[in-house]
Amino acid sequence: MAHPSLFIDALQYNNWSEEIFKQINQGGLSAVHVTICYHEDFQEMVQNVIDWNRRFEDYPNLIFLGRTAADVRRAQKEGRTAIFFGYQNCSPIEDNIGLVEVCHQLGARFMQLTYNNQSLLGTGCYEENDPGITRMGKQVIKEMNRVGLVVDMSHSSERSTLEAIEISERPIAITHANPTFWHPALRNKSNEVLKALGESNSMLGFSVYPHHLKDGSDCTVESFCNMIADTA
Amino acid sequence: MAHPSLFIDALQYNNWSEEIFKQINQGGLSAVHVTICYHEDFQEMVQNVIDWNRRFEDYPNLIFLGRTAADVRRAQKEGRTAIFFGYQNCSPIEDNIGLVEVCHQLGARFMQLTYNNQSLLGTGCYEENDPGITRMGKQVIKEMNRVGLVVDMSHSSERSTLEAIEISERPIAITHANPTFWHPALRNKSNEVLKALGESNSMLGFSVYPHHLKDGSDCTVESFCNMIADTA
Repeated sequence: MAHPSLFIDALQYNNWSEEIFKQINQGGLSAVHVTICYHEDFQEMVQNVIDWNRRFEDYPNLIFLGRTAADVRRAQKEGRTAIFFGYQNCSPIEDNIGLVEVCHQLGARFMQLTYNNQSLLGTGCYEENDPGITRMGKQVIKEMNRVGLVVDMSHSSERSTLEAIEISERPIAITHANPTFWHPALRNKSNEVLKALGESNSMLGFSVYPHHLKDGSDCTVESFCNMIADTA
Repeated sequence: MAHPSLFIDALQYNNWSEEIFKQINQGGLSAVHVTICYHEDFQEMVQNVIDWNRRFEDYPNLIFLGRTAADVRRAQKEGRTAIFFGYQNCSPIEDNIGLVEVCHQLGARFMQLTYNNQSLLGTGCYEENDPGITRMGKQVIKEMNRVGLVVDMSHSSERSTLEAIEISERPIAITHANPTFWHPALRNKSNEVLKALGESNSMLGFSVYPHHLKDGSDCTVESFCNMIADTA
């Protein structure tokens, strides 16, 4: 018998509560990629892990920390939701490549190399100039590949994104963005990026954030779905 | 067929190198409890984890990070040595009980509540006054019990040690100390502590550190072995 359909939220932030855990659970979400960091340094990020550890302890019937793909199937089978940690920035590794593995040990599975601005690793989508992946960035991508931390380029600029796809020996992820051919926001992605994504077996998660939508909050479901079909 | 004998070093510090890993490996040690912290705060301790992660990466044929008792048998079967992390102090959890679980996630399996001096959790063996386990200490012992971090009272004073044995719902460890009836060093343990250890199914690791030995560095093997027999 084939596996039933899996429902996964490729990126989510929220004012987390028992009520919301019940909603995602009852909605049949087997996995949610949860943002636990935007600009926090390492120790500030650790406090966010601590807050999540407390939630896992408080609501074991609803959620647990997801570490592997098998945990998604386990969540589905048990009627729970696996929570996968992600960073929208590389700030938690500070300037210490050894922290990549430590972050993975603490549960992180996705890390954006940049959040809109230039980082130590690459260039964000709101910068005027994009010199591409930095020297440290090249080493960190290798280390992320080694330990199993997915490179996420959702908020990165064109050249840095193309180079990350090229440098990474594993598929990357753009967890939340739409094509620029549909809506030309700086956060959305060019056809060239979409093509490189496809050729590298990488993934694109479509975004319902108003700034990424054609006509913003007035975007229709039909327009959104046609955009997905056109992108595919 | 019965398992062959297991050789475990209950506590070790060292100037670690490939040569030493080869020695412990060839000597048939299936597990070593390694001190990775004396007075480090959380982030300083993390750097020590990073240094060990690098060693695990560099010498995978000799060592790996041990997390469970089953890893000791696995090491024995594979002819490698499982390295178990321990702290000789509670400094890495700072004043944040949430860090207990985070430390466990980073591999820690033993934590002393005190290193000779008064800590936030209990009293060290060199203090004149021993008010016992603190309010925070009682909560931290419960949290250590919950996550699976062994309470180590090697450097703690009499009352604090007896109270830790009483409060802990799991057996504790004194990983490196000898009986005071054999050598009355402040770091060694009274008959009352030894009795409470035995009654709680806790463990005692005998110490060859000269300050803990009768006649110091001139201690004979016969005297040491007789002491073990007498203690048992």
